[in-house]
Amino acid sequence: MVTIDSLICSRMDRRAIEDTLAGGIDCVTVTCGFWEDTTESMDAVVRWGELVTDNADLAVLVREPGDIDRAAAEGKLAILLGFQNSAFLQGRLGYVELFKKMDVHVAQLTYNIQNDIGGSCYEPADSGLTRYGREVVAEMNRVGMVIDLSHVGDRTSLEAIEASERGVAITHANPQSLVDHPRNKSDDVLRALQKNRGVLGVTMYHNITRGFHETVDQWSEMVARTVDLIGVDCVGIGTDHNQHGDEGYLRWMRNGRWSRREQKGAGIAPPPARRSWYTTPHSHREILPALLRRGFDEREAGQILGGNWHRFYAQNLTPAGGRS
Amino acid sequence: MVTIDSLICSRMDRRAIEDTLAGGIDCVTVTCGFWEDTTESMDAVVRWGELVTDNADLAVLVREPGDIDRAAAEGKLAILLGFQNSAFLQGRLGYVELFKKMDVHVAQLTYNIQNDIGGSCYEPADSGLTRYGREVVAEMNRVGMVIDLSHVGDRTSLEAIEASERGVAITHANPQSLVDHPRNKSDDVLRALQKNRGVLGVTMYHNITRGFHETVDQWSEMVARTVDLIGVDCVGIGTDHNQHGDEGYLRWMRNGRWSRREQKGAGIAPPPARRSWYTTPHSHREILPALLRRGFDEREAGQILGGNWHRFYAQNLTPAGGRS
Repeated sequence: MVTIDSLICSRMDRRAIEDTLAGGIDCVTVTCGFWEDTTESMDAVVRWGELVTDNADLAVLVREPGDIDRAAAEGKLAILLGFQNSAFLQGRLGYVELFKKMDVHVAQLTYNIQNDIGGSCYEPADSGLTRYGREVVAEMNRVGMVIDLSHVGDRTSLEAIEASERGVAITHANPQSLVDHPRNKSDDVLRALQKNRGVLGVTMYHNITRGFHETVDQWSEMVARTVDLIGVDCVGIGTDHNQHGDEGYLRWMRNGRWSRREQKGAGIAPPPARRSWYTTPHSHREILPALLRRGFDEREAGQILGGNWHRFYAQNLTPAGGRS
Repeated sequence: MVTIDSLICSRMDRRAIEDTLAGGIDCVTVTCGFWEDTTESMDAVVRWGELVTDNADLAVLVREPGDIDRAAAEGKLAILLGFQNSAFLQGRLGYVELFKKMDVHVAQLTYNIQNDIGGSCYEPADSGLTRYGREVVAEMNRVGMVIDLSHVGDRTSLEAIEASERGVAITHANPQSLVDHPRNKSDDVLRALQKNRGVLGVTMYHNITRGFHETVDQWSEMVARTVDLIGVDCVGIGTDHNQHGDEGYLRWMRNGRWSRREQKGAGIAPPPARRSWYTTPHSHREILPALLRRGFDEREAGQILGGNWHRFYAQNLTPAGGRS
């Protein structure tokens, strides 16, 4: 069984790699950036590459899906590079392929505000997928870069799923029908995702898991109800974990360079009195027993813990037209 | 026999690809840029990729050395991406590897003026290879990006050859002892190149071939004397051909954004009354008979026409530490 966390936003160091491995996690998709332009994004890709090079005894950079298995076989952490926005493209369609060649395999179409591709989940109105957005979706399909819709608005998400010829991802969000929050996903989007053979990474970030966030058993209940909604083949885990995250980093995520006023991101309501049961990657080890307690069998629990993402990456990271 | 032109500065279109193939050329190293910064350079890489995609029946983008043979076997032109400067790095060591991943395989350390890496052949004083330059040379060695010294100053060239653990290239220049011009190479540099197992691409650009430029037999005499200087294993051909080059493009090459006054590049003296015998890639077919007339045997002529570059690329385009 391969255990995959489809989204973390930690800025990792050796200690974080060790912690992640100690949590039994074989592969993480990391966040290289949010608002960074092309060269800033390349600087981030360089830094992640250096982290892997400097810790080659513990980590592997994923170039192709098979690297996930190779890393797991060696007891190393497979680090898969992604962005939570498309600012790294600077409006250039051709950069999709260039960043794919730089081993960036996942990109969210929008982050917290509208961009040239489409609307965000926090915008009052969602334009839907733009003309440029349609070009980007087709190009991501062609080169094998995964389309992530986690922070994307509903209309843009539905149109992106409709436009995509390959499976799309929602790497870190929960069903809106279980936890009412604009960052969570409507039944319409989840049904479209299921039809598309995509995967949803259910998450444990307290702001969008409210009511299911205090204990691993509450959280497993949410997972079970999510499986009831879209089936066990479409559910994975994306923790949204932010190890060592400080206030400055959180402010960068929320404000970028687009606002001077306080922006709250997902923190629309005051945070719950008790935070999430998931405090470090070590908490990941609590998931399997909790899923079994909740009534999943070993095979289903394995799908949720990583099997579904493993299949999804194998299907969607390779170029449509041959070698990358 | 594979025929390789180690440097052209043409902005190619389908017609230029056809002309190059009609000249019997299997592989060209092209110029993606001179003064362009990172994103402008990536824009150029995108355009070259699109040229290949749009003419996939005629051309192949070289990702690894074996692609040259694969293209030749299919009667297609192998296009190898290079830069005539290091401006594309924007001072970032880590971008060497990222551009290598984008299939940029050759970079000149400096163009016509000093930069953060070293001195140019046209500067009154040559600093030698800088501290950053030493980092870049080691990184190019590591990732398998060829170091080109064609426009580089003597001291920087000698120090780069000394610093490089792999073969270096002079993709387009002639011996200074045969044609006295600052762009041509001193005996010291040529001896160091020979010791380094590098390759010199002798060229036919009239400004730096003066006296040997009017007929293919004059030019073959220059080739023969170059072989006398550094041996037949170190001599290839780099035409510096500029098909469809107009005044605006020439001005960009010479002035970039660093000067408003007229800069002459290699055109220090008025151009010779008669231009080079090499007018289009079709002229390339005149070379083999001329080399044979001059006394080379078939094997030696094959080395000069492409065999030496073929061996050099096979040795120096692969990463030092494994897969690219």
